[in-house]
Amino acid sequence: MSKILFRPEGKSVEVPDNTLLSEAIARAGVRFNLPCGGQGRCGRCKIIIEQGKFTTRASSRISPIEAEQGYVLACQTAVQGDLQVFIPPQEAIVRKLPSEKVAAEVPILPVECDWHSNPVVRKFFLTIEPPSLNDNTTDFERLKRELARQHNIKELVADLPVLRKLARTLREGEVAGQGWQVTAVLEIGNWIDPDAPPRLVDLRPGDRTGRTLAVAVDIGTTSNVVYLVDLASGKFVDSAAAYNAQIACGEDVISRILYARKEGGLEHLQRLVVQTINELLHELAERNQVDLSEVYAMTVAGNTTMTHLFLALDPAFIRLEPYIPTVNHPMPVRAAELGIHICPEATVDCLPSVGAYVGGDITAGVLSSRMFQTDKLTLFIDVGTNGEIVLGNSDWLISCACSAGPAFEGAGVRSGMRATMGAIEEVWVNAATYEPTYRVIGAVAPRGICGSGMISLLAELFITGTMDKSGHLNRTLNTPRIRVGEHGPEYVVAWARETQEQKEDIVLTEVDISNLIRAKAAIYAGFSVLTTSVGIDLADVEEVLIGGAFGKYIDIEKAIQIGLLPDMPWERFRYLGNTSVLGAFTALLCRDMRRQVAEIANKMTYLELSADNRFMEQFTSALFLPHTDTTAFPSVMRLLSQRDAG
Amino acid sequence: MSKILFRPEGKSVEVPDNTLLSEAIARAGVRFNLPCGGQGRCGRCKIIIEQGKFTTRASSRISPIEAEQGYVLACQTAVQGDLQVFIPPQEAIVRKLPSEKVAAEVPILPVECDWHSNPVVRKFFLTIEPPSLNDNTTDFERLKRELARQHNIKELVADLPVLRKLARTLREGEVAGQGWQVTAVLEIGNWIDPDAPPRLVDLRPGDRTGRTLAVAVDIGTTSNVVYLVDLASGKFVDSAAAYNAQIACGEDVISRILYARKEGGLEHLQRLVVQTINELLHELAERNQVDLSEVYAMTVAGNTTMTHLFLALDPAFIRLEPYIPTVNHPMPVRAAELGIHICPEATVDCLPSVGAYVGGDITAGVLSSRMFQTDKLTLFIDVGTNGEIVLGNSDWLISCACSAGPAFEGAGVRSGMRATMGAIEEVWVNAATYEPTYRVIGAVAPRGICGSGMISLLAELFITGTMDKSGHLNRTLNTPRIRVGEHGPEYVVAWARETQEQKEDIVLTEVDISNLIRAKAAIYAGFSVLTTSVGIDLADVEEVLIGGAFGKYIDIEKAIQIGLLPDMPWERFRYLGNTSVLGAFTALLCRDMRRQVAEIANKMTYLELSADNRFMEQFTSALFLPHTDTTAFPSVMRLLSQRDAG
Repeated sequence: MSKILFRPEGKSVEVPDNTLLSEAIARAGVRFNLPCGGQGRCGRCKIIIEQGKFTTRASSRISPIEAEQGYVLACQTAVQGDLQVFIPPQEAIVRKLPSEKVAAEVPILPVECDWHSNPVVRKFFLTIEPPSLNDNTTDFERLKRELARQHNIKELVADLPVLRKLARTLREGEVAGQGWQVTAVLEIGNWIDPDAPPRLVDLRPGDRTGRTLAVAVDIGTTSNVVYLVDLASGKFVDSAAAYNAQIACGEDVISRILYARKEGGLEHLQRLVVQTINELLHELAERNQVDLSEVYAMTVAGNTTMTHLFLALDPAFIRLEPYIPTVNHPMPVRAAELGIHICPEATVDCLPSVGAYVGGDITAGVLSSRMFQTDKLTLFIDVGTNGEIVLGNSDWLISCACSAGPAFEGAGVRSGMRATMGAIEEVWVNAATYEPTYRVIGAVAPRGICGSGMISLLAELFITGTMDKSGHLNRTLNTPRIRVGEHGPEYVVAWARETQEQKEDIVLTEVDISNLIRAKAAIYAGFSVLTTSVGIDLADVEEVLIGGAFGKYIDIEKAIQIGLLPDMPWERFRYLGNTSVLGAFTALLCRDMRRQVAEIANKMTYLELSADNRFMEQFTSALFLPHTDTTAFPSVMRLLSQRDAG
Repeated sequence: MSKILFRPEGKSVEVPDNTLLSEAIARAGVRFNLPCGGQGRCGRCKIIIEQGKFTTRASSRISPIEAEQGYVLACQTAVQGDLQVFIPPQEAIVRKLPSEKVAAEVPILPVECDWHSNPVVRKFFLTIEPPSLNDNTTDFERLKRELARQHNIKELVADLPVLRKLARTLREGEVAGQGWQVTAVLEIGNWIDPDAPPRLVDLRPGDRTGRTLAVAVDIGTTSNVVYLVDLASGKFVDSAAAYNAQIACGEDVISRILYARKEGGLEHLQRLVVQTINELLHELAERNQVDLSEVYAMTVAGNTTMTHLFLALDPAFIRLEPYIPTVNHPMPVRAAELGIHICPEATVDCLPSVGAYVGGDITAGVLSSRMFQTDKLTLFIDVGTNGEIVLGNSDWLISCACSAGPAFEGAGVRSGMRATMGAIEEVWVNAATYEPTYRVIGAVAPRGICGSGMISLLAELFITGTMDKSGHLNRTLNTPRIRVGEHGPEYVVAWARETQEQKEDIVLTEVDISNLIRAKAAIYAGFSVLTTSVGIDLADVEEVLIGGAFGKYIDIEKAIQIGLLPDMPWERFRYLGNTSVLGAFTALLCRDMRRQVAEIANKMTYLELSADNRFMEQFTSALFLPHTDTTAFPSVMRLLSQRDAG
């Protein structure tokens, strides 16, 4: 018998040698969860052996650094003498994604570029001699002359709204004995015409060259994100995010396109998204004490439908075969034309799409992911309502979109919800009891399951044998969790009493499972067709970059287990954060990068999957967990055989 | 005694030989006017001697062709035997200007240019294969591709309003089995950037290449004129004219500028002129069965203030020393931005000004007058509220503006009115009786006197000695026409009973005369300073081109007699019609000419007279009829000495 002391609680227990520490903890009456039921799968039973003898099995859940610090998994470690054990608060052990998160809290420019010499908008301070009878050049030509003299700006154009205030502003800038002192805000070139003459976006009395504000916007079908940026320093200032107010008119792009067909529907959708963006702008303005009329540029990344709706372009033919957008590279427009509450003359520039279902969010993603600069064979994935996939490197790029449907976003799933407060985002199923352990966003009582929770749950049900590879629940198991409900067989994740509303159980039905399997199958089929179409093997992909808001919550391991992501070493996966807004930020800061994103769009081949028979074949093959081709998922098969070996 | 038969009335009379035919006509009781009282000055007593003997004095009023046809002046022809005489209806004998009118009734392009290869806007008919899954290019890129394939148009941009209807229009153009048939309307380059990518102004289903409508507009302070033009044929279609509705806010530019200072005043003035132009457009549309939304370009010529008000640019500093406009070369703007009822995406292009008081109407005038192409030393004059003068040739151009005031437009003159129905436009004064004969626009009872009538009356009063060279009426003459009225000495042109309203006499007061003399002195001083400033003599001017609506009514002879125009052979004068709208027409038709007018504006030196002491000197010298320097007016001095000898 050995004595085990558990810190920091101070409880202790005596157990025979070879007892598992997880068992010892239970006997000591210490509150401790074994989410996977002691299989060594989940890594949540991490403890630190501070002193004493033990034997433990190596685990991929323990990093070499952690091993050095004394971390072991309680369920994989046996007592071999007296021990002093430290149990860290389990909630503090966050889900450890197999790859490090690289998206910093304060976003930095993901791509190196000479933004300083080539910004989209620049400010110039000028001191101008007022006119006299001997020098009676017009106000505009005088300004132009001084820009040439003082800043070597050769040409100048200006639209009416700026010309209309020119005379007053110049004279407002008068400083006794000094002449007129003003700040000219110039847009120099644009992606359509790099040699376009510099355009006077605004003129302000006094010296306003301190900072040059601009905004990068990600218009997601679900969420909109705005980054406030200072073009003078190249730095991110602040960000704000909110749901796209268009959600009221439909959850996904197809329902929005249908809404746009109604009388006035398109205009209404346009106003709604502009309203959302304006609200975010006002929020940023207030928080940062900024005058929005001094925000001088906006870059927008959105999927093709979102871009169409934002510009009030008719999206009708995006939905109908052969799926034709009005335009992939929309021309820059003025903020005033769209009703955006920044400087009316500021350019709003939508990043280019590649096709009906590979939009500006993806070209932005490719830009900010830097895959256009790498030699490595790279797969870029953005999973949302659709899964958009780009394969390639600095030489070539090919893309496709798989209509995954909104299942991973919580739609079409009985207890599904978006990844907000109260959503179950991770589930572990005890392999012995089939009881679930879950984690909820905000650490509150659960309201439903979000996408990452579903992936997690699906993987657990499968790996523990609670559900078979076709997605059928094993109703022979002795557990109240599996039952036949109103909508057929279902698994109860949380009893009504545990939930926020305390009314209904949170369940995953076989119908839900079927929806989710079809969604993952569509995405995996996309990978297959894309790699096949260029004659390479999926296993040859050297790096998998995951972008988009949803990607943030995907547990790579679980996603592989259900066959959503290809089975490859975890270190090949990298999560990049919101690549869409980061791409918009990059293009906003630097004209060269704005041209680069146009080149990316031009260079990228778009594979229309609905025109591809291979897609249906691959989709059908992928309607199993993890896949009919089990050789493509060696790590999962290993895990299953371990389980079966028990 | 000889017998004289007068046809067509058939009356006859017997008179002694050597009797003047004018006397014989009177004796026969034939109704016949002798406007100048039988001095041979007015040329209105033209008759045809069909048969018989007579002696007659040669007269510059009878052209060689007329002499061949038997025309003589009744007051200068003596009976020498039986005669058969034909008296043409006197109203049919129009005032014969000393130069031929060159402005045709249907305006033709005054300048030769390769408009056909270089129009501002062109239409292209396209047959486009609809998209398929194998060819799923976007609508815009498909259109662009076909423009390149079928018409060698390499680039294409489009603004939102056109993009918004692109998808629908292409599909509306579908002809079963033929694909999409559409007409693309392209603007190719602009004067700011000749290499700017072609812009899609409109897209229409079907073949609309038959004609390409556009409009040239003259925005006068008083009148607006619109020419409807077909850019495909290069031909004028129709024109319409109306008063500028801004007149309600002030007669001249200064009062408009003051009005613009009021709250909302500028916007109101802008709306008024746009309203006038829109009314003219609708009038043209109705008369020619044209859809205004298929009018694809507009070129505007106006003085600097009118251009500012049309664009709602602040005109405040045009009025204040040192007289600074906001801009001389306004950028092209979209029709929709100004509220002009043509295709919303059509470019509205204002021709460039040279300075505060030499505007786009003058650069347009120089363009359409072709003086920029001639070797001859040419003087171009446009007399309106201001007199704008340009001197030069193909090598150089110098311009100035003389603030003549609105006297010649009827303002500030007691019985003054604009040149409309009921205006006395020509007056002759009988040298013996001082009785006037006048001609009224529309041949109705008179309501007042217009500019040309005033010039005519002023010259007659002076030449007949009714008024002296300082503008004082000769109150010693025995005539009821000269009297002292409420406003001092005045000459009665028409008694109340002759007028339309039958209430007040139509008079010219000495105050009016003084105003008119100051107006003509300002203009003549302009000529003097301009020629002096470049070191040439006014007499060396080889050609005098008169433009502007007012120029149409100026009787060159009379204008010389009062010293408004320099005294040179009449054949050096040429009236060119409304050179402003003709210049706009030229620039509208041809991109090269649009650039030419910009070059004219750049090349032209602007002499600010208010900064020039010489102007005040010259002005003072010109405050006499015809001038203090009588040697500059030899023909007038000859006439006066004939009179005094008479």
